[in-house]
Parts: sequence; structure tokens; C-alpha cells
Amino acid sequence: MRGYRGQPTPLRVNGERLNGMLAQFDRIGRTAGGINRVAYSDADLAGRKFTLDLFRQSGLTPRLDTLGNIIARVPGTDAKLSPIMIGSHIDSVTDGGNYDGPVGSFSAIEVARSLAEQRVRLRHPIDVVVWQNEEGGTVGSQGFIGLLKPEDLSKVARSGKTLREGITLIGGDPDRIGESVKRKGDVACYIELHIEQGGLLERGSRQIGVVEGIVGLRWFEVTIKGFSNHAGTTPMDQRQDAMLAAARFTVAVNEAVRSEPGRQVATVGRMNVTPNTTNVIPGQVVMTIDLRDIDGAKLERFAARFRQIAKEIGDATRTEFSFAINANSQPALADPRVMDVVQASAAALQLTHQRMPSGAGHDAQEVAHIAPMGMIFVPSVGGISHSPREFTKPEDVAHGANVLLNAVIAADRALA
Amino acid sequence: MRGYRGQPTPLRVNGERLNGMLAQFDRIGRTAGGINRVAYSDADLAGRKFTLDLFRQSGLTPRLDTLGNIIARVPGTDAKLSPIMIGSHIDSVTDGGNYDGPVGSFSAIEVARSLAEQRVRLRHPIDVVVWQNEEGGTVGSQGFIGLLKPEDLSKVARSGKTLREGITLIGGDPDRIGESVKRKGDVACYIELHIEQGGLLERGSRQIGVVEGIVGLRWFEVTIKGFSNHAGTTPMDQRQDAMLAAARFTVAVNEAVRSEPGRQVATVGRMNVTPNTTNVIPGQVVMTIDLRDIDGAKLERFAARFRQIAKEIGDATRTEFSFAINANSQPALADPRVMDVVQASAAALQLTHQRMPSGAGHDAQEVAHIAPMGMIFVPSVGGISHSPREFTKPEDVAHGANVLLNAVIAADRALA
Repeated sequence: MRGYRGQPTPLRVNGERLNGMLAQFDRIGRTAGGINRVAYSDADLAGRKFTLDLFRQSGLTPRLDTLGNIIARVPGTDAKLSPIMIGSHIDSVTDGGNYDGPVGSFSAIEVARSLAEQRVRLRHPIDVVVWQNEEGGTVGSQGFIGLLKPEDLSKVARSGKTLREGITLIGGDPDRIGESVKRKGDVACYIELHIEQGGLLERGSRQIGVVEGIVGLRWFEVTIKGFSNHAGTTPMDQRQDAMLAAARFTVAVNEAVRSEPGRQVATVGRMNVTPNTTNVIPGQVVMTIDLRDIDGAKLERFAARFRQIAKEIGDATRTEFSFAINANSQPALADPRVMDVVQASAAALQLTHQRMPSGAGHDAQEVAHIAPMGMIFVPSVGGISHSPREFTKPEDVAHGANVLLNAVIAADRALA
Repeated sequence: MRGYRGQPTPLRVNGERLNGMLAQFDRIGRTAGGINRVAYSDADLAGRKFTLDLFRQSGLTPRLDTLGNIIARVPGTDAKLSPIMIGSHIDSVTDGGNYDGPVGSFSAIEVARSLAEQRVRLRHPIDVVVWQNEEGGTVGSQGFIGLLKPEDLSKVARSGKTLREGITLIGGDPDRIGESVKRKGDVACYIELHIEQGGLLERGSRQIGVVEGIVGLRWFEVTIKGFSNHAGTTPMDQRQDAMLAAARFTVAVNEAVRSEPGRQVATVGRMNVTPNTTNVIPGQVVMTIDLRDIDGAKLERFAARFRQIAKEIGDATRTEFSFAINANSQPALADPRVMDVVQASAAALQLTHQRMPSGAGHDAQEVAHIAPMGMIFVPSVGGISHSPREFTKPEDVAHGANVLLNAVIAADRALA
């Protein structure tokens, strides 16, 4: 590996062309409620067709792997080197927007096109990838690193189709997904451009986020058992009120997470009360906590602290807390060398930038298992995402694609 | 009105016969989930038939008023006097027990039978009443005092039938309900025996509760509006979390109500969260508070305090609270003379007793609008009611009926 050297005259993509493609894409899956390109839906299929056409218009030759991921290779000059991989996804959540996914996917295509137009040959091959079904649990990228098991194929996606049906529908082969699996060394590095989906860049007036990693996540489902009783006849000191216990716990979890510096977040997002009637003391509450941080040790520490708090509140309210873990992902750290090339590219382009974690999950967290990973964030207006109000300004899209272009060139020099 | 004089040799009902009738009644509407004699259901109709037969076996001649209430009169010796009214209801909640209602209804019948068997003639007529549809909102007793309006007849009861349909089904006449309305002076006094539905008597080892009144009630529906956002990407200090606001409010309401002495109670029984998803900060919560106390001024004070707390928490969490009132009933105080005759009867029977409010609503709270009212409580085992586990010991049922018998005799002497 060679050290990174600055890029004194940065190249630029065709930002107008890129934003024009995004604007055209906005028509696909657009409904009154927002963009609906849920994986394996008709709109997703239409989106994939649009994207395959865009690859071809851009001089690339897309192929499908057995998982249904779309990949196009630009050859490099050194046949011994693994590819630098760039890309994102194009599927959306229900009632989402047009920026989460397409910005990174189309920018990766535009970067490959710009390199060819500007006759830049790199040592490494470039693989431009569009992962399938990111929003349904990073299915395509999980399969790519070998985490998708045959039994997972019977899981039902949001479209109502099983993964097996979905993979078949988009042109993959569910019985041969193992053939697409990559291992350490197969990919030189992976760089993904994405909208921030939060408000840090906007509030800090920064144009580029240099992602330090993707937070780890714990989803707890907490069941609190009290005793249902008459709201009129049961004195306050005789109650075993599951709602009161849940409320105290919600407040205490919030206070605990805010009691120390850092970017850790915890959210009580769901609460289901039994019997949920005005005049009955709740006998049971089931609630969730979503805990995230970039530091795995901190996640462990807060998880233990939540159980301790639950014990104390259970004792005080004569209720019983029990915990289930519904999701548990480790933080995925960006590679320092990839962060450096991203940051240096932003600097060379004279774009304001800052390092930051990603609070949302991305395909990059999967690829990080087998390759040095980095991400580039561009601002989301108002920090809004997964919403029809999701928006990133065209100039910010172009800035992000320019950083990606120059980061790829720099990584080509810096990495073995 | 003459002053009350003690009853040196109290009379007694046939407790075995009374409890035998209750045991037979337990078969009607019994399901795996508990007693289901919801008003206007087939089981309610079967229960009314059983009850009408019991009236007749007891030497009484029941009639139906136009509301469908069952009333039987025992003539008095003074034709100028209004009746002393005793009774309760026989309908149940969904999955309830056999004691809430039938204990008071059958005891009232037993009291009239015992008076006849023991050849006791009173000055006042006795009206033995079984109110229809108590659990659906004291419908029969509200109609009796003129609170049921023609437009109320289209309301749908828990059975799925409208009140109009229900009243027709049980033998009333919805177009002539006005003919059943009574006014001040029409009833000399009303005394209702009922199970406590709470645990005060059991914990205090008392056999009889002398009810001081029925608490007033406020039902608030509180809507909290925040802003829904991504649980991973939104920093803790940038949130407008409706769930956190609801939790703080729930804790603060509980603390406020417990911060001063008294028997006031407040319950957050229902909470509906939007979107109610693990990984989304809740944008809206709708929750209820059930506030009760025997003191109307205290209700007003706490209602104002809750709004003040909501304002403070709304400001602190950048959420908006709004209040709707879903129910608002004033406290119904027992008449001191009726309390006195109940208490003296318990004392004459050498039963331990205490004065206490009723935290639950009863037909007595309606009749209190037009007549001096009193209630007798007998212990609920474990304080449990509205449950298949509802139970009152046979000896306590008999104690209650004996107090009712002697209270009627004493009231006959004490009241004009």
C-alpha cells in the first residue's frame, strides 16, 4: 500500500446530467403518499429497468449476480488487483423519497462514465453496484458477503413476496446464491455515497460528511407485567400499574442516554398496552427500545444499565420486567484510509466537511465485513428521510458525486 | 321527620335462601371467560326472566316501567308517603362476575320477602327495583330521573343493539320513556347494597362499608403532538418525541395525585402511539386520564394542575398537548340520615364497619339527584371485580342483606 497523495486538480462529474437522471427517476413509483419502490414490487422492477438502461447509456455493461444485484465492471490496468466497488441501492421504503439510494447509485454510474469520458484509466477495476432490497434488511449486500442462508429465502418481504420469489423475479437464482459470495481480498475497497437522513450537516452548514462508521444497534422488546384492576376503586398505593412502570422506564432510559457526552441515541418507539381502556389500570405493557452507537462497548454498557433501571423500577412499582432482543448489530467502522481519501477529496474540492457516524444502516455495513469501507454523506434538507419530504439539493448531489469521483482516483493510488 | 332510634333486636333475612338464589343465577351467562350478561344479550334476557320468577316466588308482583326497569311495590300503611326504594342491577360487564349487581338485587327481593314473612308492615311503601343496563352507563336509572334523551336511544350498547332496540327487547317502550321519570319527592329514599369492587374493607378487616358517596369522575383524552423522525439519525437534543412527553406526563400526573393526602385516584389507562414502530420517534400519542374523587373542588383543582403540568412538559419537550373531556360526572353524596341508619343497623347487628367513598359508579349516583341516597358495601375478596375472579363470601352477602333489612326499617321510622 502506498500513502495517499493530495489531488491538486480535482476532476468533476457532469452534475446536470446526474440530477437530470434523478429527476426522471422520480416518476417511477411516485404515488400520493410518496415514492413506493418497495423491493420486488412492480415499481421496483420498473426502477431496475430504468437503471439497467442508464448503465448501458453510460457505456457500462451491467450483469446480474445470482442474488439479483446489478454490477458493472470497468477494467483496470493491473490485472492482479481486486476491484474498487462503488454504489448504493434504488429500492425505497413505503411512502419514502427519491434520494435515499438513487443518489449513491446514479452517482456511482456517473463517476464511471466521467472517468471514461475524461479518459482516466485506473489501476484497479471499478465495480459499480446497485444492491437489491436494501430497505428490507440489506438483503443483496448480506448475500454478497455470505450472510444470507437458504432458510432466509422463505422470509416474506414488504412486497408480500418471499425473498426466494423476489430474487427469481428480479433475475437472480435463489438456488445458486452461494456463487455470488465474496471474501476478504475480493474487493479492494467499497465507497458508498448516500444522503445523510439526519440534520447534522445542515445544522453545521457542512457540505460533505466523512462517515466514521455505521452505528451498532440493539432492539429490545421489554414486557412489563403488573396487575389489571379497577381505576376507580383501587387506591394509589395498592396498584401494580404496568403503564406507570413503562412511563418511568421511558423517562429513565432517556435520562441515562443523555447523561453522558457522545452521539448515542435511544428511542422508545412502540408501546402496546393491555387492556388499553380508560378506566382499567394497565396489567401489561410491551414496549421497545432502539439503542444505537458507533462504540460496541458503549452499547453493552447501556444495555446493562437499562436492565438495572428496569430492576429498580420493577421493585418500586411491584411490576416485572423481562427483556427480549429483537435485533443486534455490531458497529461497522469505516477504514481510516478510505476516510482519508474521502476527506482529502472534499478538501481538494474546497467543500466544507466533517467526520460523523451514520445513525442509519446501509449496505456499506455489510461490505465492511470483507473490505475496507467508507461512506460519503450529503445533506438532507431538514434532516428528513423515509418521507415524501425527503430532499437533497442538486448542488449537494453533484458535490457528493465529485467527492466520490476523486476518492476513487485517490483510493486507486493509495490502496494495494 | 323523626329522629332515628336504635333497633335493639335486629331482624335477619334468610341468608341461606339468598345465597342459594345467587348460586343458581351463576349458571346464567357463565362462559369460559366469566359471566357474560351484557345488557340486551340473550343471557341478560334469561337473567331477567329468572329474576322476574324470583320476584313472584317471593310473593312480589313485578312490573316493567317504560324504560324496562323491573319494579315491585310492597304497600305501606300510610298512603301519603313516597316509597323507600331498594335494589340494584343484574346485567354484567364482558367477562365479569356474578356478584356485581345480583347481590344487591336479590338481597332487596329477600328483604321484602323477609318483611312479609316476619309480618312487619312499614309506613312507607317499599319499591324493589332491578335497573336495566347499569354497566352500559346506568341507562335505566338515568332514564328514571329524566336524563335519558330521545337522541340517546340511538346509541349502540355493548350487545351491538341500540338502546331503542334493547328497551323494546326487554319489554319497555322507547317512545314513552318520559312516563317513567320521577322527580324530587317521588322517592322517600334509595338504599343500594353492592359489593365493594375494591380492597379497603378486606384490608381493614371490616364487614360493612357505609358509603359516603360516589366519586365524581373526569375522563381526559390528551393528544400530544411531536415530530416523527428517524430513531438512528436524529440526535437526542433535536427530538420532538411525543412518547417521551407522554411518559413524563404519566409520571407527573401520578406524582401530583399522590402528593397530597386523600383518596383521589388518577389512572393513565390507554395510550395509542403513532406510528408505533421500533425505529421511529413517535410523532403523536393519544392517552387518557381517569381522575376520581368524592370532592368536586378537588377534581377541579387536579384538572387545572394536569393542564399546567402538560404546559410545562410540552415546553420542555417541544411538543403540543391538547385536552378533550370524554366524561364528566359530579360526585354524588350519600344523605347523612341514610348513612346514619345504615351505620346504626350495622352496629345493631354487631358487624364491623367503616365509612368510605365508592370509587366505582352505581345507579345510586343517578337516584341521588332526586332522593336521599345511601349505599351498603360488602367486601370483595382480593378487591377484585369485573373479573371471573370476583367473589364475595356467602356470610358477607347475608350480612349486607341484614343491614339493608334493618336500614329500611330504620329509614321507615326516620324519614317523612
